Amino acid sequence: MDQEISTNPFADDKLHEECGIFGIWGKPDAAAFVALGLHALQHRGQEASGIVTCSGGQFHMERREGLVGDQFSVGGPIDKLKGQNAIGHVRYSTTGGSLNRNIQPFFADVANGGIAIAHNGNLTNAVAIRHRLVRQGSIFYSTSDTECIVHLVATSTYGPIVDRLVDALKQVEGAYSLVALTQKKLIGVRDPLGVRPLVIGKVDGAYVLASETCALDIIAADYVRDVEPGELVVISDEGIKSYKPFPPQRQRFCIFEYVYFARPDSIIENLGVYEVRKAIGAELAREAPVEADMVVPVPDSGVPGAIGYAEASKIPFELGIIRNHYVGRTFIEPSDHIRNLGVKLKHNANRARLKGKRVVLVDDSIVRGTTSKKIIKMVRDAGAAEVHMRIASPPTTDSCFYGVDTPEKKNLLAANYTIAEMCRFVGADSLHFVTINGLYRALRQSRRDGKTTRYCDACFTGDYPTALTDRDSETDNGQLSLLAV
Amino acid sequence: MDQEISTNPFADDKLHEECGIFGIWGKPDAAAFVALGLHALQHRGQEASGIVTCSGGQFHMERREGLVGDQFSVGGPIDKLKGQNAIGHVRYSTTGGSLNRNIQPFFADVANGGIAIAHNGNLTNAVAIRHRLVRQGSIFYSTSDTECIVHLVATSTYGPIVDRLVDALKQVEGAYSLVALTQKKLIGVRDPLGVRPLVIGKVDGAYVLASETCALDIIAADYVRDVEPGELVVISDEGIKSYKPFPPQRQRFCIFEYVYFARPDSIIENLGVYEVRKAIGAELAREAPVEADMVVPVPDSGVPGAIGYAEASKIPFELGIIRNHYVGRTFIEPSDHIRNLGVKLKHNANRARLKGKRVVLVDDSIVRGTTSKKIIKMVRDAGAAEVHMRIASPPTTDSCFYGVDTPEKKNLLAANYTIAEMCRFVGADSLHFVTINGLYRALRQSRRDGKTTRYCDACFTGDYPTALTDRDSETDNGQLSLLAV
Amino acid sequence: MDQEISTNPFADDKLHEECGIFGIWGKPDAAAFVALGLHALQHRGQEASGIVTCSGGQFHMERREGLVGDQFSVGGPIDKLKGQNAIGHVRYSTTGGSLNRNIQPFFADVANGGIAIAHNGNLTNAVAIRHRLVRQGSIFYSTSDTECIVHLVATSTYGPIVDRLVDALKQVEGAYSLVALTQKKLIGVRDPLGVRPLVIGKVDGAYVLASETCALDIIAADYVRDVEPGELVVISDEGIKSYKPFPPQRQRFCIFEYVYFARPDSIIENLGVYEVRKAIGAELAREAPVEADMVVPVPDSGVPGAIGYAEASKIPFELGIIRNHYVGRTFIEPSDHIRNLGVKLKHNANRARLKGKRVVLVDDSIVRGTTSKKIIKMVRDAGAAEVHMRIASPPTTDSCFYGVDTPEKKNLLAANYTIAEMCRFVGADSLHFVTINGLYRALRQSRRDGKTTRYCDACFTGDYPTALTDRDSETDNGQLSLLAV
Amino acid sequence: MDQEISTNPFADDKLHEECGIFGIWGKPDAAAFVALGLHALQHRGQEASGIVTCSGGQFHMERREGLVGDQFSVGGPIDKLKGQNAIGHVRYSTTGGSLNRNIQPFFADVANGGIAIAHNGNLTNAVAIRHRLVRQGSIFYSTSDTECIVHLVATSTYGPIVDRLVDALKQVEGAYSLVALTQKKLIGVRDPLGVRPLVIGKVDGAYVLASETCALDIIAADYVRDVEPGELVVISDEGIKSYKPFPPQRQRFCIFEYVYFARPDSIIENLGVYEVRKAIGAELAREAPVEADMVVPVPDSGVPGAIGYAEASKIPFELGIIRNHYVGRTFIEPSDHIRNLGVKLKHNANRARLKGKRVVLVDDSIVRGTTSKKIIKMVRDAGAAEVHMRIASPPTTDSCFYGVDTPEKKNLLAANYTIAEMCRFVGADSLHFVTINGLYRALRQSRRDGKTTRYCDACFTGDYPTALTDRDSETDNGQLSLLAV
Repeated sequence: MDQEISTNPFADDKLHEECGIFGIWGKPDAAAFVALGLHALQHRGQEASGIVTCSGGQFHMERREGLVGDQFSVGGPIDKLKGQNAIGHVRYSTTGGSLNRNIQPFFADVANGGIAIAHNGNLTNAVAIRHRLVRQGSIFYSTSDTECIVHLVATSTYGPIVDRLVDALKQVEGAYSLVALTQKKLIGVRDPLGVRPLVIGKVDGAYVLASETCALDIIAADYVRDVEPGELVVISDEGIKSYKPFPPQRQRFCIFEYVYFARPDSIIENLGVYEVRKAIGAELAREAPVEADMVVPVPDSGVPGAIGYAEASKIPFELGIIRNHYVGRTFIEPSDHIRNLGVKLKHNANRARLKGKRVVLVDDSIVRGTTSKKIIKMVRDAGAAEVHMRIASPPTTDSCFYGVDTPEKKNLLAANYTIAEMCRFVGADSLHFVTINGLYRALRQSRRDGKTTRYCDACFTGDYPTALTDRDSETDNGQLSLLAV
Repeated sequence: MDQEISTNPFADDKLHEECGIFGIWGKPDAAAFVALGLHALQHRGQEASGIVTCSGGQFHMERREGLVGDQFSVGGPIDKLKGQNAIGHVRYSTTGGSLNRNIQPFFADVANGGIAIAHNGNLTNAVAIRHRLVRQGSIFYSTSDTECIVHLVATSTYGPIVDRLVDALKQVEGAYSLVALTQKKLIGVRDPLGVRPLVIGKVDGAYVLASETCALDIIAADYVRDVEPGELVVISDEGIKSYKPFPPQRQRFCIFEYVYFARPDSIIENLGVYEVRKAIGAELAREAPVEADMVVPVPDSGVPGAIGYAEASKIPFELGIIRNHYVGRTFIEPSDHIRNLGVKLKHNANRARLKGKRVVLVDDSIVRGTTSKKIIKMVRDAGAAEVHMRIASPPTTDSCFYGVDTPEKKNLLAANYTIAEMCRFVGADSLHFVTINGLYRALRQSRRDGKTTRYCDACFTGDYPTALTDRDSETDNGQLSLLAV
Repeated sequence: MDQEISTNPFADDKLHEECGIFGIWGKPDAAAFVALGLHALQHRGQEASGIVTCSGGQFHMERREGLVGDQFSVGGPIDKLKGQNAIGHVRYSTTGGSLNRNIQPFFADVANGGIAIAHNGNLTNAVAIRHRLVRQGSIFYSTSDTECIVHLVATSTYGPIVDRLVDALKQVEGAYSLVALTQKKLIGVRDPLGVRPLVIGKVDGAYVLASETCALDIIAADYVRDVEPGELVVISDEGIKSYKPFPPQRQRFCIFEYVYFARPDSIIENLGVYEVRKAIGAELAREAPVEADMVVPVPDSGVPGAIGYAEASKIPFELGIIRNHYVGRTFIEPSDHIRNLGVKLKHNANRARLKGKRVVLVDDSIVRGTTSKKIIKMVRDAGAAEVHMRIASPPTTDSCFYGVDTPEKKNLLAANYTIAEMCRFVGADSLHFVTINGLYRALRQSRRDGKTTRYCDACFTGDYPTALTDRDSETDNGQLSLLAV
Repeated sequence: MDQEISTNPFADDKLHEECGIFGIWGKPDAAAFVALGLHALQHRGQEASGIVTCSGGQFHMERREGLVGDQFSVGGPIDKLKGQNAIGHVRYSTTGGSLNRNIQPFFADVANGGIAIAHNGNLTNAVAIRHRLVRQGSIFYSTSDTECIVHLVATSTYGPIVDRLVDALKQVEGAYSLVALTQKKLIGVRDPLGVRPLVIGKVDGAYVLASETCALDIIAADYVRDVEPGELVVISDEGIKSYKPFPPQRQRFCIFEYVYFARPDSIIENLGVYEVRKAIGAELAREAPVEADMVVPVPDSGVPGAIGYAEASKIPFELGIIRNHYVGRTFIEPSDHIRNLGVKLKHNANRARLKGKRVVLVDDSIVRGTTSKKIIKMVRDAGAAEVHMRIASPPTTDSCFYGVDTPEKKNLLAANYTIAEMCRFVGADSLHFVTINGLYRALRQSRRDGKTTRYCDACFTGDYPTALTDRDSETDNGQLSLLAV
């Protein structure tokens, strides 16, 4: 169980959402509103962002690596993004080097006009579709699955662009929430399972689409409703229209959005994310009580669960670990000399508070376990007498294929070890993951029923709600592009 | 009382510490250790940072704008910073444009060798000294008060460099903690009042100097002791020596370091900063109790006080406001259109939790009051029934002249309005600042006694512990440099 | 005839070749050789350059704005361009803003592998083809005509990639010399008219393709022969094969390559370019002799013609105008105040030499006439007694559609004015353009015969050797992309 | 005689002038005029440039690495440089790394106001002065000799700034032409020997100072006169005043300015530089005639000499070598593989012209001989039957200490070898340098007389007109700064 201890600030041993999307129709300075919305969605992707506007039939696009707030400034790219209609995208990616070609939105001139598309999710048959399209003469410019949708739109035999988009989406499998911009319309769609979120808002009469409600709040837009699973909404100067072009299916919303991805101030399908996380913490307190002096969150994601645990257990909540928020992108790759110190760039123990104390440590999840191991060691080095680890999600045993950057199964700690083994690996005095039923209870369900669950919880159960064509393909899916990144 | 509502992410209505300093002697890869230490001190200054090393009699300097973690990377500037001895500095500044000339450390070749100096604090007779030095032929390259010290060292008639430094410091008034590096020595000094912090640590036999203990923790250095007020320590290959070259005075440590500047995980003069802040929160609960449903911190600085208030009042602690940590440096300067929305780039209300609730809002201080006003409005817009503001410091009525970026007195809300007026201005249902005696109680004193206090609390009391020569000068101190920045 | 006097260093009133191409097969460090070759072809395009290599079945691409020598350095992009096979492109463009999408080579994954293409020339039916391809579902990523070729290759129903390329080229009209790189082959083609040059060289057994022989010289490659009009050569590890897939046509090589585009040290179809230019100068001396004290070239392009004129007329050749070679890319956009001075960033008169003298001024061509006007004024201001302008090409009366950046006909001075009017406009004492027959004589022809000429001289005669489908299209060809640059 | 063959484009085996200076008083948009003037002086320094303006008592400074035309643009730094009075500087330097601290002009606040200084030349007692000043407490920020002058002004005991400047200059040895800007005055000075040039011009009533007349031409300023050796001119709103504060000495103007440094279109002390160079070529033809087919210049510096040689010898002048002007700053550091090809980035042979011909090759000077060797080989490889090298200066046997970047004597080819040995080294059929008397004849003197010569020709004769205090110092002058660049 010897695993490398990295000081890379981004090797943070978390699952990462791969995207956030935003669109607005009929608002002067639309690009600035999109930039604000993307800023509020930055937790869904920090690597790169892009905005496309349309004005007078002409599209404008700016795509940049880095944070929205650093890249999109008035006086800078925002000024080039003319128009009252716009969409945008933030992207997380682990890929190094020049990502330029993969930054969304993607744009295409197609037979009836232009279309820009921004996508949150992941297609599970993208490789198969790509190979078919290349054989037919489509030229791919990125390695992104989203580009398949664009080519399917371009090569569709339907006329109107909405029909083309529906035609395209009927050919794909997997998860997608997407926003699309044409010269006449702003379109929002969620896949039939509704794996990824997408909400509708309104500000001063202008419609807004966003991954989460926190992106409505920042521009003072009112929340209207969630786009429904399998729904396609078309926003234009005539207002909003709803379509249900796909055969109906049981909804399977990503349960991990509640556990970790979504911002705690967002409200998803009428449940406050913060409330759910506190409730999980309370479940943990009930499922795995322990005598202790304080409940300490691993900041920032463990905070709501820790508050819930503390409230339910009557053990004081304390900031026993302090987070440094100034971690830069390119911090020193330390020499061996320094690496051995086990440097922690993001966290430090609050020694004055921890010394001699019995600590309940609350975190949202364990992926590889490397960070948990370092943090527990840090808490012990600061003098804690006992460290009891409580995890606000069930063991992560399976990879996600729906738009989350997950390690392969062989690198998931919980896929390979028992809880007792994991407890020894991370060095805790006790370790408990909330049960799957505890998680459902926090979501105000009595328990999980695989036949009726309305959540995708495949990362905890292996119960994938769609086909996984590319994964299961017997042919070698090979490299997606002959052109190296 | 109409004040401009800005969305500039840095117009955050906080006082700002102007510097953090760090030094290390006799450690291979010294610059990498300094970079780590400065990273841990980044809360003391985010604008720019610099590191100077000395190796084989030759000094190496790199000074950069931006975060340490972005600017100082192995493979980059760190590699040029050869040597086992190094000092560094992080700097906060509101000045726009090219700051290059003001970034510390400052370096000079003087008669007996080279010296680099990094300074935290502010001199109150720097203008007078500068004018004198210019008349004598010294050429200033920055507008920084620190450069006075360098010129006083260079023009000193003493021989040995430590004697020159002491000679220089005897001529300055004000606050300084500083670290200096020569070819043979690492020097640390605190002014006779000990206004700014400076601690000594040790790692693998190598001595370390740092503004706060959190910078020792990150490199796994042991805390040895605080440098004493008026003490000068000289570290060399022969070990550490202590000098007390100044007439003894009553210590006056900056009380605001406990209130806001220092990191909560630091321990200053044997008091944990987090503990003090919690204790202030408890004082507030006792001084100004209120019936409410929850205690909500203004994140992040209000969190320890809110925990203390909640614990003392038995009112639940809740994250009613969520902070976005991805605020870039150069965010959109919004158009009027957007400005009127009162966009909040850093904070969002947790609507699901706040709706219909009576809220105790805890923040560390009120400077101009603009942010408090926006946040209270945001909390009310999210549906809060009542908002009771509790401030974990007394009213800030006076400017600081000791190294803190404070508005002029005319812009300090508390200098111009009664608490009732301030309450109306920020829009709270009630407003209470901890009393000055409450603050001293949190510091484990029975009450404040102006004759014996060991703290500088001038920002709350106007009781300045030093002469303010430049402020009180009748001559026009004019512009510090004829060369525009 | 009032025309704006610009000081933009690039408003140099010259026609500009739009591209240079280079390829090499079977040479270690192929990318470095391409960089050297492109450097020697930099006069054919200074705006941007790109290199594609192929190694182990994988392609590598780097495309940059700026000079080859600034952008492609060992230790930089060259190091990423692995492989022994490579092609490259330099590009001239007047378009402002981000040209990124238009920088060549273009690359595509097609059914049977990858292909990269670099193109010199211009297609005259690109808009028509593009509209057809978009209707069929091809997505264009640039506004370049070259991308049509790539999509025609991708959508071809033929199998082998050479067959696909031939299929594609049979559908296009206009001028092209191109190099293409696949995993197994380096391909070179010239259009059936052979409008643009392309030569074959060999260095240490490795084959080279280049726009001009000067690019062979820099890598010490031997000149083998010109690729013939309508010829396609395929270079692979098996050697070189020649194909003639197009119906044969009379060759029409661009005569302006001899006049201005090609480097004087290049040899095109067995004629040294410098020799031709000197011969034009001698023709001018015979056609339009004048009594004068010196022959002065407008540097640098007028130098060989002036040497030829001086030699034939026995009038001394003198550097009466000095060129400043340090003109940066982004020089001051002068205030009105300065503009009125008629500032000349590139040229200055040699006052000491010109004063009181009768001057024959030799330049290669007159496009808009603005630069000639400024230069003649400058020479007169320096004291010249008489200025006789001699132009080493016939009047430029018609636009080029074959890869040269020409103003519209309405902006061509010679299309709108008589020679006498032009003489008054530029302010010369006399003005003579070499006759079209004089130009042909310099090329060792007796005279121009429109029925047999082997040159494209449409810019002087309006005799276009191909259809101009896009120009003549009755449909609105509209904007090439809905996405603004 | 094995010497390394480099392809570094800047290892061009030329001596390099180290600076050009320019100043203007009383002209709106003064900075833009300075930028234009510096552009015209760019041949005197391409590494970095700086401009200082003064407006309303406040100085503004911008200093940049790179070409003036790339760095100083309206809309960019020029806009910050407010005011009607300005000076500027261009700088050549071989030093790598961050030169920032050495870029001129230098600025200082001194007792009576501000002063900015830009300097062309070199002081021969700078190290001695620097050591004295450091001992007195002056802090140096650069390694430039010019900073000595600034400190001597600052520490002068005189009052008025002109008196301080004279006081300073009386303490220095060596060569200087300098321009200085105060709030009330523009000052120009040449050292008593007048080694470096400086001229006075006038445009629309505003006075101008510039290193060469070509910088007057670009802004359409009229040439007034040269500043005299030992003269100090003070320009203010009251007009121009002349002072002669130094004891008179025989003038010793740098003869190499005529040979190579100055632009051919400049007129220095009433002699056109182009005329002098042609006359040297004619001297060469008389001193070393040869039967040949053509005279070929090594471009660009050999061109006037070649024209003069051709005219005198009646042998045709031909462009047998073509120069590529697009050499970037950072071209590929070639792999060994490529280095062995002897790649020539700047020059190519005109094969069609050279084949089988007897060539007289004219260049301005030989320093190390490496470039000559490569060029002669290139000409031979292109088929030349004979190559006769003619050099338009006497053998360069001694280093310059007056502002020219010269190799140490041991690296000067002519200091170590006979002409016959040099001829063999460069591989010529014959080699002749113009005699020292031939050079003086070209300057319209009968011959050189060491007792009366008005030129500094030390690089050819070793006859240095000043003391060389630093060179001759017995003490170790050591490193100029303990701070590494």
